[in-house]
Amino acid sequence: MLQIGPYTFRSRLFLGTGKYRTAEVQEKAVQASETEVLTFAVRRMNIFDESQPDPFEKMDLSNYKLLPNTAGAKTAEEAVRIAKMANAAGMCDMVKVEVIGCDKTLLPDPVETLRASEQLLSEGFTVLTYTSDDVVLARKLQELGIHAIMPGAAPIGTGLGIINPYNLSHIIEQAQVPVIVDAGIGSPKDAVYAMELGADGILLNTAVSDANDPPKMAEAMKLAVQAGQLGFEAGRIEKKFYAKASSPTEGLSKV
Amino acid sequence: MLQIGPYTFRSRLFLGTGKYRTAEVQEKAVQASETEVLTFAVRRMNIFDESQPDPFEKMDLSNYKLLPNTAGAKTAEEAVRIAKMANAAGMCDMVKVEVIGCDKTLLPDPVETLRASEQLLSEGFTVLTYTSDDVVLARKLQELGIHAIMPGAAPIGTGLGIINPYNLSHIIEQAQVPVIVDAGIGSPKDAVYAMELGADGILLNTAVSDANDPPKMAEAMKLAVQAGQLGFEAGRIEKKFYAKASSPTEGLSKV
Amino acid sequence: MLQIGPYTFRSRLFLGTGKYRTAEVQEKAVQASETEVLTFAVRRMNIFDESQPDPFEKMDLSNYKLLPNTAGAKTAEEAVRIAKMANAAGMCDMVKVEVIGCDKTLLPDPVETLRASEQLLSEGFTVLTYTSDDVVLARKLQELGIHAIMPGAAPIGTGLGIINPYNLSHIIEQAQVPVIVDAGIGSPKDAVYAMELGADGILLNTAVSDANDPPKMAEAMKLAVQAGQLGFEAGRIEKKFYAKASSPTEGLSKV
Amino acid sequence: MLQIGPYTFRSRLFLGTGKYRTAEVQEKAVQASETEVLTFAVRRMNIFDESQPDPFEKMDLSNYKLLPNTAGAKTAEEAVRIAKMANAAGMCDMVKVEVIGCDKTLLPDPVETLRASEQLLSEGFTVLTYTSDDVVLARKLQELGIHAIMPGAAPIGTGLGIINPYNLSHIIEQAQVPVIVDAGIGSPKDAVYAMELGADGILLNTAVSDANDPPKMAEAMKLAVQAGQLGFEAGRIEKKFYAKASSPTEGLSKV
Repeated sequence: MLQIGPYTFRSRLFLGTGKYRTAEVQEKAVQASETEVLTFAVRRMNIFDESQPDPFEKMDLSNYKLLPNTAGAKTAEEAVRIAKMANAAGMCDMVKVEVIGCDKTLLPDPVETLRASEQLLSEGFTVLTYTSDDVVLARKLQELGIHAIMPGAAPIGTGLGIINPYNLSHIIEQAQVPVIVDAGIGSPKDAVYAMELGADGILLNTAVSDANDPPKMAEAMKLAVQAGQLGFEAGRIEKKFYAKASSPTEGLSKV
Repeated sequence: MLQIGPYTFRSRLFLGTGKYRTAEVQEKAVQASETEVLTFAVRRMNIFDESQPDPFEKMDLSNYKLLPNTAGAKTAEEAVRIAKMANAAGMCDMVKVEVIGCDKTLLPDPVETLRASEQLLSEGFTVLTYTSDDVVLARKLQELGIHAIMPGAAPIGTGLGIINPYNLSHIIEQAQVPVIVDAGIGSPKDAVYAMELGADGILLNTAVSDANDPPKMAEAMKLAVQAGQLGFEAGRIEKKFYAKASSPTEGLSKV
Repeated sequence: MLQIGPYTFRSRLFLGTGKYRTAEVQEKAVQASETEVLTFAVRRMNIFDESQPDPFEKMDLSNYKLLPNTAGAKTAEEAVRIAKMANAAGMCDMVKVEVIGCDKTLLPDPVETLRASEQLLSEGFTVLTYTSDDVVLARKLQELGIHAIMPGAAPIGTGLGIINPYNLSHIIEQAQVPVIVDAGIGSPKDAVYAMELGADGILLNTAVSDANDPPKMAEAMKLAVQAGQLGFEAGRIEKKFYAKASSPTEGLSKV
Repeated sequence: MLQIGPYTFRSRLFLGTGKYRTAEVQEKAVQASETEVLTFAVRRMNIFDESQPDPFEKMDLSNYKLLPNTAGAKTAEEAVRIAKMANAAGMCDMVKVEVIGCDKTLLPDPVETLRASEQLLSEGFTVLTYTSDDVVLARKLQELGIHAIMPGAAPIGTGLGIINPYNLSHIIEQAQVPVIVDAGIGSPKDAVYAMELGADGILLNTAVSDANDPPKMAEAMKLAVQAGQLGFEAGRIEKKFYAKASSPTEGLSKV
């Protein structure tokens, strides 16, 4: 079971919303994923802008925990304002802090991310923070008291997978709270790899929404997260330079 | 469904036997894997050497297809002799050709492997050939008429995973028969990766038998093969150098 | 020519000092490297601690620019104090800012690194800042006005090489000042790779001082930096999935 | 010094010819590379086909050893015929055996390559054999008595670099004759890497001829091969998971 702040989840796969071709495809993908947490950009909600489509059109939300994110914020102040809007609308008190510092890579701004996390914690939110894979920054965020750390595997939407397994391993080794790998997952093998490294969960969006067959990819990701978690728990073999007979070589009959 | 010669399988995971700590652990791992094909070294069978333990002790074999391999052979003649012994003992007519050419890497001998495959085909066997990831050798083996090609991901027992995805991709692209990636798988992510590249199945042994918890790793591998197959069918996103917003950036409300 | 603040260098290889087995080995390695910039930890200088050996014993320093670093600092204040000590001792006004935030990885503290850089700039130093490969942090440091950015290839002394060429490429693409790749270089191929990606220079220490033959490795690194710089300027070929005949295939004689 | 059969070379870089934009560019690149061995496709020689341009137009060949290759051959018989033509024309008795088995990857045919090498050895040639990175095939070729083994880093002209350093390491560890890495080199870092792994030399063509600035890339490759050779001899540091202070941490002054 995955525990984040006061919330407990059986599924370790968080899914983004709002990018699917149709509401029907999104609904099927969400169901296939068996996720319990749906993320969405607050600024895209039609409660704030009636011209926007409802990202959760036709969905029965009683089965999901909604995780609003502060996408679009470039400063701590913007992020805090967005989070408060979501809260005022009666949503869950969880928020994913996302403060972007670069238009080309959409990588997070470390200073504003720290400030936003600190302020939202002081306002009583359950804070999950999207960050780069900077090991020291991850530690500083946890010293503030955040409830989950969300290092990126690679920049958002690139599908490049776990670029730096070294940093990710150190973040996981030093973590005091759950580590949810967020952004950059391209295919099931990336999700498995993150889980094998010891991550507590995965958040992804584009890898499913932009796949040729989103519901099928959602099911693949569900299985990948489970496979990685079980593989991590089962304890993999060490890598060797020289081969080792797979069929025992001792006691062979003299045919 | 995976079709190899006259045989059809729902599971795309083949499992080795004979290396587990105990017969009980092996039985649990085999069940957890949901495999339909069990491989074993003919030369280890106690039908040929009564001092050997029975690798299938306590197992109900009616649920599995047995795939004898010619492990221990260093020449085509030895491989053929071993295969005929298995056949004479009333086993299935499938055989995995394995002719080793290097004691340190346990990599196959390309020339003897070709000769052994040719002879066993002429004897009427259903031939699955273990080979290196040499693209031209894979083609030559298929021109002989073998029923499945089994390129190694990495040397046997090393757990190094898919060392050369490039060659594997070319073998898969050019394949006329099923491609079962055999040897070198270390963890679930390796199995997923092979399947995402388009492999038709996976054969592994050490990654499960030598894991800390073999039954749990067997279940992880089962899910990994399924996740990779679904991911391959679902069509992954392309990799990008620049980031792309995961939450849509158009039409953001002006908060 | 490499230009950092008011200083110009022909060599793009900066070399650390103080870790060699003997002063003689250090001197030979420094000569073989043809470096023009020697870095050293101020806190190790015997001008501050007479019990310390002189790191430049027997060397003619007139041929080198000395680059003091703030190794040992864990806060901006410590880094500033160390830099001022070096300056008061009549050294060059260049300083390499190094503020460590993690004892296990020796990765830099992003917040203290920003603060130290800002304060040293206001004191008139020529500031070269050691940082992680965080793309946004690199930009923020440059917005302060630092004179060179020094992203790590990998943690200090690990020899892991360029773990994240993606981030390094983005830092280089966005850079307004020279990018000196610092820390983590393990062998000449790592130095070449960094230069091929477009880095302006390399700073390394352990890869030479702890090699079996430091002077020979220093010469290898000198050539590697030159090879990488020329390779970058010469413009490499694109990578292809399918092969392309190296010997022309058109107009072959009909032998 | 590199010794192949009766020939000795100071340079460890072999260069292909015949693909440059102009004869002038080729001449400049060859000079910048300081190579001593030039390879060329016999079937392209205008001594056999007067309509062909002279690949060595304007070059003073007295400084180079010419290494004819059998490019274009798909069988052992074709390769032998091509080699004999070159020899009859009074060229050096060295020949690079190249028998291609796949049009898409231009990877070599293992069986025909073995046969061609065997026949040319019996005819008294000094045989250098281009092969895949199959470890056992490399051993079999050496058992025939070839004078140098030339495993590909990656398929010809792809520029993919050392795809499988594992196999290359095993080939080098087991080699009885010089190992010249041939094909697939894309940039100087690839050449350095091959040499660091212990290769005795590099043969490349496209990486220089198709670079934006071939003479400059030729110089880069010359330096890269030297850097890699020196780096190999100097003995690199081991890779570590945890960082190690580059500036000594003991005995720091208490500033």
